[in-house]
Amino acid sequence: MPPSGLTPYRLLISCPDRPGIVAAASSLLAEWGSNITSSDQHTTDPFDGRFLMRMEFVPAGGDAMEIDRLREDFRRRVAEPFGMDWRISSGLPHRRMAILVSREDHCLLDLLWRRRRGDLPGEIVLVAGNHTDCEQDATRFDVPFHHVPVHPGAKAEAEEQLLEILTGAGVELVVLARYMQILSAGFLEGVAVPVINIHHSFLPAFSGADPYRRALERGVKIIGATAHYATEELDGGPIIEQDIERVDHRHTVAGLTEVGRDIERRVLARAVRRHLDDRVLVYGNRTVVF
Amino acid sequence: MPPSGLTPYRLLISCPDRPGIVAAASSLLAEWGSNITSSDQHTTDPFDGRFLMRMEFVPAGGDAMEIDRLREDFRRRVAEPFGMDWRISSGLPHRRMAILVSREDHCLLDLLWRRRRGDLPGEIVLVAGNHTDCEQDATRFDVPFHHVPVHPGAKAEAEEQLLEILTGAGVELVVLARYMQILSAGFLEGVAVPVINIHHSFLPAFSGADPYRRALERGVKIIGATAHYATEELDGGPIIEQDIERVDHRHTVAGLTEVGRDIERRVLARAVRRHLDDRVLVYGNRTVVF
Amino acid sequence: MPPSGLTPYRLLISCPDRPGIVAAASSLLAEWGSNITSSDQHTTDPFDGRFLMRMEFVPAGGDAMEIDRLREDFRRRVAEPFGMDWRISSGLPHRRMAILVSREDHCLLDLLWRRRRGDLPGEIVLVAGNHTDCEQDATRFDVPFHHVPVHPGAKAEAEEQLLEILTGAGVELVVLARYMQILSAGFLEGVAVPVINIHHSFLPAFSGADPYRRALERGVKIIGATAHYATEELDGGPIIEQDIERVDHRHTVAGLTEVGRDIERRVLARAVRRHLDDRVLVYGNRTVVF
Amino acid sequence: MPPSGLTPYRLLISCPDRPGIVAAASSLLAEWGSNITSSDQHTTDPFDGRFLMRMEFVPAGGDAMEIDRLREDFRRRVAEPFGMDWRISSGLPHRRMAILVSREDHCLLDLLWRRRRGDLPGEIVLVAGNHTDCEQDATRFDVPFHHVPVHPGAKAEAEEQLLEILTGAGVELVVLARYMQILSAGFLEGVAVPVINIHHSFLPAFSGADPYRRALERGVKIIGATAHYATEELDGGPIIEQDIERVDHRHTVAGLTEVGRDIERRVLARAVRRHLDDRVLVYGNRTVVF
Repeated sequence: MPPSGLTPYRLLISCPDRPGIVAAASSLLAEWGSNITSSDQHTTDPFDGRFLMRMEFVPAGGDAMEIDRLREDFRRRVAEPFGMDWRISSGLPHRRMAILVSREDHCLLDLLWRRRRGDLPGEIVLVAGNHTDCEQDATRFDVPFHHVPVHPGAKAEAEEQLLEILTGAGVELVVLARYMQILSAGFLEGVAVPVINIHHSFLPAFSGADPYRRALERGVKIIGATAHYATEELDGGPIIEQDIERVDHRHTVAGLTEVGRDIERRVLARAVRRHLDDRVLVYGNRTVVF
Repeated sequence: MPPSGLTPYRLLISCPDRPGIVAAASSLLAEWGSNITSSDQHTTDPFDGRFLMRMEFVPAGGDAMEIDRLREDFRRRVAEPFGMDWRISSGLPHRRMAILVSREDHCLLDLLWRRRRGDLPGEIVLVAGNHTDCEQDATRFDVPFHHVPVHPGAKAEAEEQLLEILTGAGVELVVLARYMQILSAGFLEGVAVPVINIHHSFLPAFSGADPYRRALERGVKIIGATAHYATEELDGGPIIEQDIERVDHRHTVAGLTEVGRDIERRVLARAVRRHLDDRVLVYGNRTVVF
Repeated sequence: MPPSGLTPYRLLISCPDRPGIVAAASSLLAEWGSNITSSDQHTTDPFDGRFLMRMEFVPAGGDAMEIDRLREDFRRRVAEPFGMDWRISSGLPHRRMAILVSREDHCLLDLLWRRRRGDLPGEIVLVAGNHTDCEQDATRFDVPFHHVPVHPGAKAEAEEQLLEILTGAGVELVVLARYMQILSAGFLEGVAVPVINIHHSFLPAFSGADPYRRALERGVKIIGATAHYATEELDGGPIIEQDIERVDHRHTVAGLTEVGRDIERRVLARAVRRHLDDRVLVYGNRTVVF
Repeated sequence: MPPSGLTPYRLLISCPDRPGIVAAASSLLAEWGSNITSSDQHTTDPFDGRFLMRMEFVPAGGDAMEIDRLREDFRRRVAEPFGMDWRISSGLPHRRMAILVSREDHCLLDLLWRRRRGDLPGEIVLVAGNHTDCEQDATRFDVPFHHVPVHPGAKAEAEEQLLEILTGAGVELVVLARYMQILSAGFLEGVAVPVINIHHSFLPAFSGADPYRRALERGVKIIGATAHYATEELDGGPIIEQDIERVDHRHTVAGLTEVGRDIERRVLARAVRRHLDDRVLVYGNRTVVF
């Protein structure tokens, strides 16, 4: 790890493509004595496309006030002239995340374990579940658990309670770790931070209920999982990560589900990691993962 | 390779499951002095399921007449009492196969090349195409090419002509190597041999037209291909083999298509190989691939 | 799950290949009214090879005494005439396993979690470590932890203590879940049950110390892990399972190690699972995994 | 494809890392009206590391003279001050490549076919072999074939003849497509262009003779192939690409070899493609593949 004064920052840019963007951004950083240690860019279309960029840089001095001045300078001299969506973010302090669960524990445990190891650059500040099955797992990792049951006909109340908990805790990311409730558009708008979901199958195949049974009945030789940002359109949000495993005729539905659990936790953990590393940029309904 | 008198034969069985099937089949083979060198079986459900088996055996003597007597004995004492669908097939002489193509050459070339190497245990007796783009490729490998154009409104005539060519040549397998015409139920019935198709995507996702463009627009991180037996229901037949590759935001539609070609030829070649090795048993709309 | 009287048993055979083995074994099972639900066999060489077989069967009645009589009958009429190494094992009661650890928790946690889910058909009766880092993880899953430190120059004493613990607990399998001590031939002989090790790299590459650093320095694009039975020859025992992931120039040693942990826990869990399912047969220095 | 005046160029840089490199390079390109459409960079170590960068840019005007002036300006104002190894290359005209073969045809055929499709941005100007097995394959794709036999004790003469052919044809890349002769250091120096080799196994495992037999004897569950730049140290050069496939106990040496051929041709084709796209930068004995 670099000394704390040398924490790398991340500059994220999305704007209409035109000549001079890289030069303008990198020149300003150079003026401030920053060293760019990593840079990725993508142009969605060489003619009339969108320009997306991620730069990691180590500022000359790392105190917060200087970074604020750098931000202001960047806004005025680079971001506004080029019409950018942008931000300069620091990996530290770690972003605050909440995990929503139902009964399944595999995705939750994997995230808790990775956080404990230090492999996940975020703080898991709370776990909330509509069932209590995962309560003990959360508390064993010293993470508070909130039980927010969803009573028939009272989903709106449950969402309101969840919103209060999430916004009260100042979370910056919500992870649906096999949370088996459909969240309303109102909730997604209210929570106002990114929500990452794991889809228990290989989108766009088998969206909807009982995917492993349907995969079995279709006789597929490969199953997968998809992590994506939750949007109003169920299962339709921008895909962050996917992975698969081979299966064969010997797999029962239970066997496919077990294999599926392994893929799900792996795919979700990767997606959360990429997000926290500021590696995922969304444009339209797609992502660039640098 | 074993001496020709010791060519391994394959016994393939599908029947309702009940105790004693393996014993009956293996005892009869033992009586005839055969040595079972490989055996795989699958029961679709431990209670009231279907029993599927493939055995490879080296007969005591390999002359055709003895095998015919063994077949007859098996039919009477094993197959009929257990109500079996069954066959005893020899890898030799190689099965006669035809390949149908349109304009794309990648699947065709791969099959021709594997055949030349001796990696594909079948004879490619003819190639037929609704375009002539692949003619030279076929003839360079000394395989006759038939041009069967499909004129607007005259598809039935083209299918009839194809049928005549295929049945005239006594083919035992038809491979659709990116043949871009939809074959009618009548054709499939008329040809009366298995037809293997390669679907240029990862079924059940993106069935239908322009799959790579749709995959790009959905922002998927993985693309795939599916080889399946052709049935009346377009893209709905039993899946034999699937495979995938990772892609990312840098892939254009052309790039995805190029990656797709590599997967397609690999998946189709594996499926044809498995079929020719008598490793694929169909039950319902699914396959067991031993 | 089948009713308890119908628990499937497993017949495992290894013997010199000759005609009639399958017939003899399956006929005897049929005589006893058993239904063979799964069967796999492999002949290492069609001429003068070794014959390996695994059959799953549901006995007509499931009481222990009948199985003992079946075993005795099989021994006399089949196993001895064919000179077989063999056993008939039941999946129940679950086999007793011990896990040895040092400081790394990932493989241990994964096994404990899979056991809790019911995905691992064995009982984890104890965890022993030469460090106490993993103590709390074990006890949280209600598994007793034994601290057996290895003092400089006193390795023999530590092994003796371990042996006492393992044999005292009647373990039938020992799993080295990143146990960083080399076990002596005497220990392996004394423990007298299979020992499964996870090698933190892709054998035979990078055996020995510091594999991820060496992989980085060699600039590899793929890293892997290998699970194998421990033998006297360090890292040389029969391989049970391997897997890999792609890496690139952006991975530091820490990054490779993190990816490696994911592969290691996955590969070890699969190997342990296959072993407990009686799917692994050893011949020479190799395995057949049915 | 962009209009010919808008062919993208590639700027490749390797130099000691320090602040301001990206700014200097991108500003100069911006001054000349170029639009950077893609950019990747890597710093081998945040402190005191080496900086590697690849930029794709579309120049304002595409005529060769302007590019020469841009090159000269870049050399003077950016490359020299920063002590860069660098080049600005155009994808067009395609680089001239030669393929060396022995008896195996799979890698050769795959490259010839990809070239014909337009998937490989290079011209295959000649094929040379120490055997004539592949002659017809080359000529069928209208590529001249040179037979350069290597007589016992006369390897130097053969290398000399090869050198004459290769330099006479002005090749810029040599691909060893399963060329089974070890090339001397003198040859590699004399040819003075990059030489890409495919290693028929998963380096660093099983380097040397008969890799598939040794893989079988070791009982591996995965085999692979490695494409690397040829260096004096046999099999020791910088790795460009690797891939693997799963195998099991049913694979004979012939079966492993067949699987191996599929991996080899795929890995070699990818490596050649990356090289021709100027995506591979070498530092020390490693590569960065952008």
